[in-house]
Amino acid sequence: MKKSLLILALAVFSQIGFAQVQLSEDEIEQKIDEIIPQLSLKEKVAMCHAQSKFSSPGVPRLGIPEIWMADGPHGVRAEINWDDWGHAGWTNDSVTAFPALTCLAASFNPEVAMQYGNALGEEARFRRKDIMLAPGVNIYRTPLNGRNFEYLGEDPYLVSTMVVPYIKGIQSNGVSACVKHFALNNQEEWRGHIDVQVDDRALREIYLPAFKAAVTEAGVWTLMGAYNKYKGQYTTTNKVLINDILKGEWGFDGVVVSDWGSAHDTDEAALNGLDLEMGSWTNGLTASRDFAYNEYYLADAFYAKLKSGEIPESVVDDKVRRILRLMFRTSMNTARGFGSQNSEQHQQVARKVATEGMVLLKNEDHFFPIDPATTKTIAVIGENATKMMTLGGGSSELKAQYEISPLEGIQKRFSNAKILHTLGYSSGPSWYGRVIEPKENQDSLYQAALETARQADLVLFVGGLNKNHHQDCEAGDRLSYNLPFNQDALLQDIVKINPNTAVILVSGNAVAVPWLNDVKALLQAWYLGSETGNAIADLLSGEVNPSGKLPFSFPVKLEDNAAHSFGKLSYPGDSIKQYYKEGILVGYRWFDTKQIKPQFPFGYGLSYTSFAYNDLKTDKKAYTTNDSVEVSFTLKNTGDVAGAEVAQLYVSDPKCSVMRPAKELKAFKKVFLQPGEEKEVSLSVPASSFAYYSEETKGWVVEPGKFILQINSSSADNQLKTTIEVN
Amino acid sequence: MKKSLLILALAVFSQIGFAQVQLSEDEIEQKIDEIIPQLSLKEKVAMCHAQSKFSSPGVPRLGIPEIWMADGPHGVRAEINWDDWGHAGWTNDSVTAFPALTCLAASFNPEVAMQYGNALGEEARFRRKDIMLAPGVNIYRTPLNGRNFEYLGEDPYLVSTMVVPYIKGIQSNGVSACVKHFALNNQEEWRGHIDVQVDDRALREIYLPAFKAAVTEAGVWTLMGAYNKYKGQYTTTNKVLINDILKGEWGFDGVVVSDWGSAHDTDEAALNGLDLEMGSWTNGLTASRDFAYNEYYLADAFYAKLKSGEIPESVVDDKVRRILRLMFRTSMNTARGFGSQNSEQHQQVARKVATEGMVLLKNEDHFFPIDPATTKTIAVIGENATKMMTLGGGSSELKAQYEISPLEGIQKRFSNAKILHTLGYSSGPSWYGRVIEPKENQDSLYQAALETARQADLVLFVGGLNKNHHQDCEAGDRLSYNLPFNQDALLQDIVKINPNTAVILVSGNAVAVPWLNDVKALLQAWYLGSETGNAIADLLSGEVNPSGKLPFSFPVKLEDNAAHSFGKLSYPGDSIKQYYKEGILVGYRWFDTKQIKPQFPFGYGLSYTSFAYNDLKTDKKAYTTNDSVEVSFTLKNTGDVAGAEVAQLYVSDPKCSVMRPAKELKAFKKVFLQPGEEKEVSLSVPASSFAYYSEETKGWVVEPGKFILQINSSSADNQLKTTIEVN
Repeated sequence: MKKSLLILALAVFSQIGFAQVQLSEDEIEQKIDEIIPQLSLKEKVAMCHAQSKFSSPGVPRLGIPEIWMADGPHGVRAEINWDDWGHAGWTNDSVTAFPALTCLAASFNPEVAMQYGNALGEEARFRRKDIMLAPGVNIYRTPLNGRNFEYLGEDPYLVSTMVVPYIKGIQSNGVSACVKHFALNNQEEWRGHIDVQVDDRALREIYLPAFKAAVTEAGVWTLMGAYNKYKGQYTTTNKVLINDILKGEWGFDGVVVSDWGSAHDTDEAALNGLDLEMGSWTNGLTASRDFAYNEYYLADAFYAKLKSGEIPESVVDDKVRRILRLMFRTSMNTARGFGSQNSEQHQQVARKVATEGMVLLKNEDHFFPIDPATTKTIAVIGENATKMMTLGGGSSELKAQYEISPLEGIQKRFSNAKILHTLGYSSGPSWYGRVIEPKENQDSLYQAALETARQADLVLFVGGLNKNHHQDCEAGDRLSYNLPFNQDALLQDIVKINPNTAVILVSGNAVAVPWLNDVKALLQAWYLGSETGNAIADLLSGEVNPSGKLPFSFPVKLEDNAAHSFGKLSYPGDSIKQYYKEGILVGYRWFDTKQIKPQFPFGYGLSYTSFAYNDLKTDKKAYTTNDSVEVSFTLKNTGDVAGAEVAQLYVSDPKCSVMRPAKELKAFKKVFLQPGEEKEVSLSVPASSFAYYSEETKGWVVEPGKFILQINSSSADNQLKTTIEVN
Repeated sequence: MKKSLLILALAVFSQIGFAQVQLSEDEIEQKIDEIIPQLSLKEKVAMCHAQSKFSSPGVPRLGIPEIWMADGPHGVRAEINWDDWGHAGWTNDSVTAFPALTCLAASFNPEVAMQYGNALGEEARFRRKDIMLAPGVNIYRTPLNGRNFEYLGEDPYLVSTMVVPYIKGIQSNGVSACVKHFALNNQEEWRGHIDVQVDDRALREIYLPAFKAAVTEAGVWTLMGAYNKYKGQYTTTNKVLINDILKGEWGFDGVVVSDWGSAHDTDEAALNGLDLEMGSWTNGLTASRDFAYNEYYLADAFYAKLKSGEIPESVVDDKVRRILRLMFRTSMNTARGFGSQNSEQHQQVARKVATEGMVLLKNEDHFFPIDPATTKTIAVIGENATKMMTLGGGSSELKAQYEISPLEGIQKRFSNAKILHTLGYSSGPSWYGRVIEPKENQDSLYQAALETARQADLVLFVGGLNKNHHQDCEAGDRLSYNLPFNQDALLQDIVKINPNTAVILVSGNAVAVPWLNDVKALLQAWYLGSETGNAIADLLSGEVNPSGKLPFSFPVKLEDNAAHSFGKLSYPGDSIKQYYKEGILVGYRWFDTKQIKPQFPFGYGLSYTSFAYNDLKTDKKAYTTNDSVEVSFTLKNTGDVAGAEVAQLYVSDPKCSVMRPAKELKAFKKVFLQPGEEKEVSLSVPASSFAYYSEETKGWVVEPGKFILQINSSSADNQLKTTIEVN
């Protein structure tokens, strides 16, 4: 390994910009106090709904600017027409495509999350956007969810820890992040109406923590509602979720924006905390386009109810106050810089996230790294070696300035090798993410792949899922846990011909790996954006040592996954309702507690080096709930290349009046170590985080007694253990 | 008159915005010094040409913003597609339509020019534009020029005096004005290539002063080249005009932008001072749209010559420096506010300019004002009573938030009267300004008009020109000096039936008025924008007293006009060249010097009151060329309503070694007076302004001797006179 991992560490971003004095929070509230009385009721109502696909009006006569939004979360979406979904045909909207959020989560590195957010915020600012519709923090409940690639995995602590710096990074540019989709939108199937039945404990312990962290720790300025229902009410206009929890308990002072078309009722929208309605009724459902915006739930109907006094004006004033506050934080924030786009730094961030996020799942006989000096013949087989993955997937689709394919990356890095390439299979033509099943050529592609494998010294099979409908794509779920397009059979046949085969799995979800024992190596490569090929080549060549860990568990088979263990009422529901019967036992909590062995456990990932854990200490043996437990141990790189290990601290409550999961992640740290280097690692865990949410008291409870602390290399690989007491 | 004229005077504009500290000029130059070395040659070249119809790229990776432009000069044009001329279909681009610049000129009030510019700049800023492609300052040489309505008349002093505050007003918003079209673009016929032959004296005395004032007095940040040629070279890339005069003599430090497609050669564009090329080759002349921008003269071909060293890099560095300077003044100016749109203040400005600019040309028997308490029957006849004049006209077309027609204004104000209305004639359907000559209904419309006139106590004929092709419209000249659509005959027949007829002439040009003796009154009403009907009603009702003066002469017949006195080689030329044979004798200079009586002289305009001039004094009798002549006199409102008079100071050089015009405007002041009020009026005239441009010495010469100062009510109406000496 020629270069250290650290070479990709970034200098402070430089921009041609200025830091000006911005108004203080108090001054902003005073300004808002002055503005609101100047607004007519019509102007107030206008601010509460869209004027176009991605903008809402300000108050032109007073110089209050419009709000412009763009989809994320992996880059700034291309410009869309004012009033339909067609591309506007601009040429300044080719952007840096960053890796999918699953990859960011797999990095287990909050530092790179901050860099990611900052770079994305800079791109959004340069494109004159005020809100980035990102990040998505919905919990990974099932590997079939078509939108998991936009989220950060199955563990609430991991999601929260990664999303806070990502949001802060975006917002440091005077661009609002918009955390989404609030809440319980954990599948795409029937997302528009499914009514999620979940117990309060699972809601609080599993599904809300990331949103709460976004609000209370990151100070996010905008939050997006979801399409689905909760307690029989649409989540976007849900009294419990928005009024009671978000704005009540958590004190959210920002703007709640609907998902595009997720509002369905004026009273609910008005009274249950929706501030800005987007996307309703603009897809030709009414004859006139202008008419449509007036027909939004927070438009004419809202105005009429305000005018008649049926809804008090204080209701719209609160929404306007929040929207103005957002403007003072973004479009009217004179301290913000000008942003930048496609800078070398952004490309470096994309590559850094990609290289830190890929997860090495198997590496028999040190298959990887492959020496770039090799003169061998390498067969690169699989459609994903060349398929552009920034296209498709739904709203997260990007017009990337460039996207280096895996094949390009491999060809460039292994220039001394002979590189053969064949598709192996074809997913068929797709149109806006709708897959058309392959009809022809499949046989000839199949045969060509076997022939190519035969001619090579080693095979790199680059397959997985893609961004078509029913794969990793918004608005639909996967139809099967297995790989599509006959890849399993193809792989089995390839390894028969050439056992020197590794799989590079391009996906945002776990997949079945029935061929695992027959391949030498398996690299989980996610969707990596612009730098895909370079980043993959970095790992394959050993330029960078893999350090990613799985942010979700790979079950052996779908039925092993908690959500799927309870049949169709649990997933996908009966089309009206669904029941989260597994409760809090999501992801590794399920596998550990039920002692089901996953294919690959949460937190798992290999390295080209090895690590030794020693000397676990805690600062005390007994704590109160106000204390933090200070944990330390040593971590040593015992191999001969530099590398990074993600040390994970799990906590168990072995004796409790309520069921507790076998263990729960409460801290982690990614530690970079040179060969032979040893570091003392410190982790600080608030004892209050050992709490469970009591269905009885509707509050958080730390039950006094012993707690076991495990220091792990993955959720399944314990290295050190100790017991403490909390009183 | 119930309200004083002064009620429309405006308070300081209020905006929800902040004033931040902006970089000093020195700091900006230092910043630019730091930026240029960071730019690649490709990035530099990219900054020098368009990326879309109305934008040019910055340097995304460094956070240097794009430049966005919009057509003016009467409001901010609607959003246009990225790469074709179709409307983008946005709904946030309905704006305040301000009166045409001819009307502003006719106000003879620099104060309202400042308010106009500021309001327009605020609208541009709100629309996130960095450059307003305004104002036009080409001299009114012939009443056939289709674009005169966008300009400020025939006198270089008047144009200069009005345009400086207009530009300052725009630029006070951190939005660049763009003075155009430089230079000698005084007709639309063959504008794309006609080679103007003009002597240096006329160039300097008549055609350049307004541009010079824009640069040296207003400090304009952007200037647009013209389409036509001068000295055989396109003006946009003209060594003499751009390099020698503009950037050399005048020290212009801003950006020269091409008109859309006015560049034609890489070497000329590169070396003769064009900084930013817009609009070339994007109208389907090449197969690929992306390709087209690369094919701009300041694109790939420029890059190749820079790369090879054929053109030194200092050439592009100078352009980039100017463009960056412009950005620091606009898009990177953190001190600029947020602008505003359609504010009540903007609407008031539009109405104020309109009421101050209309010119009462005849008012027999005190026809105007008409008492709004009247219960008479008023016939409003003529297509222009209802025709939307913000549509058409070429690039100055606007999507007005509203446009109150003359008829609406009259109906509303004279609500006690019975208002009849009929078209009288029809200009026929028009499509994007291309007129289709009326084919049918003309006879029935004609007869209906006569019938309507017969039923009325008085007739208001609202006719004139319109914004169709070959009327007041870009890209073509008028075909006749007479009114189109048979209006002359119709008017003659109307007055036979009802002699109690007044004409409201909606046009941006002088027209033949063969029916003048037969009508009671004539009001020159221009194109007035959003507030058209209200402003006309203000004058008709006496709510506001007319105070506009003609910014150009009305010849009796076309041949009386200087440009037309010399036959077709003078206007429109032989399609290759044209000869400005009248030299400096443009407008009233021609009529006065040649003693040809115009229909209405320059500076002429009636009031509902009368004024007396007395007591002319100068501070001295003899001056040096460094002195200013301080002139004072008293002006009294001798009537019984408040009103304003534009006192005009003309200077004659009765004895000179070269021909001098009979007199030339050197100062004016608009004075508001209550009935019976008298004010002392002071004017200050630099003796250096008495100079002529010497063809021999190529410099300005004040020949010692006597100069006659006339204080006039119009160019033809002398009130006071004195003689001074300059040594």
